[in-house]
Amino acid sequence: MTTFSFEKLVIFGVGLIGGSLARALRERGGVARGGSIVGVGRSSASGERARQLGVVDEIAALEDDASLARALAGADLVLLAAPVAQTGPLLRRIAPFLDAATLITDAGSTKSDVIAAAREALGARIGQFVPGHPIAGRESSGVEAALADLYVGRNVVLCALPENRPDDVHRIEAMWRATGAHVRTMDGAQHDRVFAAVSHLPHLLSFALVEQILGEADSALKFSFAAGGFRDFTRIAASSPEMWRDVCLANREALVDELDAYMAVLARLRAAMLAGDGATLEAVFARSREARTGWLERGARAARPLDDLAST
Amino acid sequence: MTTFSFEKLVIFGVGLIGGSLARALRERGGVARGGSIVGVGRSSASGERARQLGVVDEIAALEDDASLARALAGADLVLLAAPVAQTGPLLRRIAPFLDAATLITDAGSTKSDVIAAAREALGARIGQFVPGHPIAGRESSGVEAALADLYVGRNVVLCALPENRPDDVHRIEAMWRATGAHVRTMDGAQHDRVFAAVSHLPHLLSFALVEQILGEADSALKFSFAAGGFRDFTRIAASSPEMWRDVCLANREALVDELDAYMAVLARLRAAMLAGDGATLEAVFARSREARTGWLERGARAARPLDDLAST
Repeated sequence: MTTFSFEKLVIFGVGLIGGSLARALRERGGVARGGSIVGVGRSSASGERARQLGVVDEIAALEDDASLARALAGADLVLLAAPVAQTGPLLRRIAPFLDAATLITDAGSTKSDVIAAAREALGARIGQFVPGHPIAGRESSGVEAALADLYVGRNVVLCALPENRPDDVHRIEAMWRATGAHVRTMDGAQHDRVFAAVSHLPHLLSFALVEQILGEADSALKFSFAAGGFRDFTRIAASSPEMWRDVCLANREALVDELDAYMAVLARLRAAMLAGDGATLEAVFARSREARTGWLERGARAARPLDDLAST
Repeated sequence: MTTFSFEKLVIFGVGLIGGSLARALRERGGVARGGSIVGVGRSSASGERARQLGVVDEIAALEDDASLARALAGADLVLLAAPVAQTGPLLRRIAPFLDAATLITDAGSTKSDVIAAAREALGARIGQFVPGHPIAGRESSGVEAALADLYVGRNVVLCALPENRPDDVHRIEAMWRATGAHVRTMDGAQHDRVFAAVSHLPHLLSFALVEQILGEADSALKFSFAAGGFRDFTRIAASSPEMWRDVCLANREALVDELDAYMAVLARLRAAMLAGDGATLEAVFARSREARTGWLERGARAARPLDDLAST
């Protein structure tokens, strides 16, 4: 296994995800002697906060050419940890200052759109970009919430491109392994289908349930009787509206496919109810319960259970 | 406020719900000096277990006319705490042995169907039946899981019938208040709409999500990446398939209405995604998050938060 260390890491967006990577690499020997971590953000206040907390060594200003050029000069690695919709603009801003030896990766929760934006922004240099997605999170966000062990036992998906050099992909793998994560690989389209099904669709469905109750004349009465089942089902509706707007738009193709398949299941259940077909209902419910229980049991035997994992 | 005590309470189905009522009344002085609690079940083993645990004083056999007649003679109150689909058969079985002074109530999670079954089984004696629904539960079931404080701070809905005498309704209210519950009243149709929206529909949606993923070719891959959001969303898919089959059939009218309204919300979100309409998505998500957060904050200020409340 490749060991990983770098001289200079530049993180665009030092929040929970970027800050946790910085903390993890620092604690686990990923930063070479004399190496440094530079944080770049839109707001100098949040960058300053990251520096005060010791998460980054230096900060740079995205809007300032000289500051950005200094930040990127001689960088081994750039991590994009900003909302996915900013991938294209960020890479276009970075491109003029990018060394040929600098690798770029990202932490976006969708991949097809990120890859398309990167191809457009980087052109012939697309091989320098290795797309990634760490499956980790917490209910709190921002650099204050960053944890050195956020990625321990978590999955990180890499969606290597045909243009990536194998050695470069191995370096990004080694970086994530250094944080304690498990690295898994698949292509971008497959990634987007998987997460549309197990993450994006549940979020959409959860927001939609609250929206539906809100729209009814007796919504106050209904909320007053909502209990534990409703609470669990809608926990993910407490997630960031901006982030989920971006995810839904960025992954709309796979998400609409999953939504259509889901609505077909609902239509089947609806027909069974109207037909008084208890056998079909019970078979579906029993199959679901068994699959869900089996999934949970496999998770409990995994290196790190999901107990503290927020909506991802 | 009426205080409540009785000489003889007969519980059909001494599991979590019936057993917890028995324990609560016993601990809180609801059983008069010399009074007794009789448990009636289909299996003599589970009844025997309830007696060994001290939850009931005596047991009777449903199939045995003499035993059932002895159990019901002079009873103040009968509680039906069996699955809702058994309401009609149970009441038909009870009717020939029912004293004119005995009140009957139930704990079923649907009400229109229970009321219809009771009207058919009891005929002119329908006034003796006061329909109810305690909103409480635990993940474990059976008489072993019964708790004296299961109902403390919980809502109990009573759906009094026009044929009920006000004094009889007050006695049932007083019984539930004696367990520490809050009693709220509404009619059966309203009850079923409320619980279709906040309980039955979320259960259906949760089962349906697992069913959909199971039906896809890459379901193993998808389950292997499911994380915290999926876990919370599908927690209620671990519920009893038999119980939820019965609930979906019993409350199908209200549930199909809610499902149709929900699918209309999904269709709106789908159209917004395809149109690239981020403003609509964000507005819906923000509104949902705010409503859900407000609901949770009101709950946290309530007498008893939902932390240990299973799917209900």
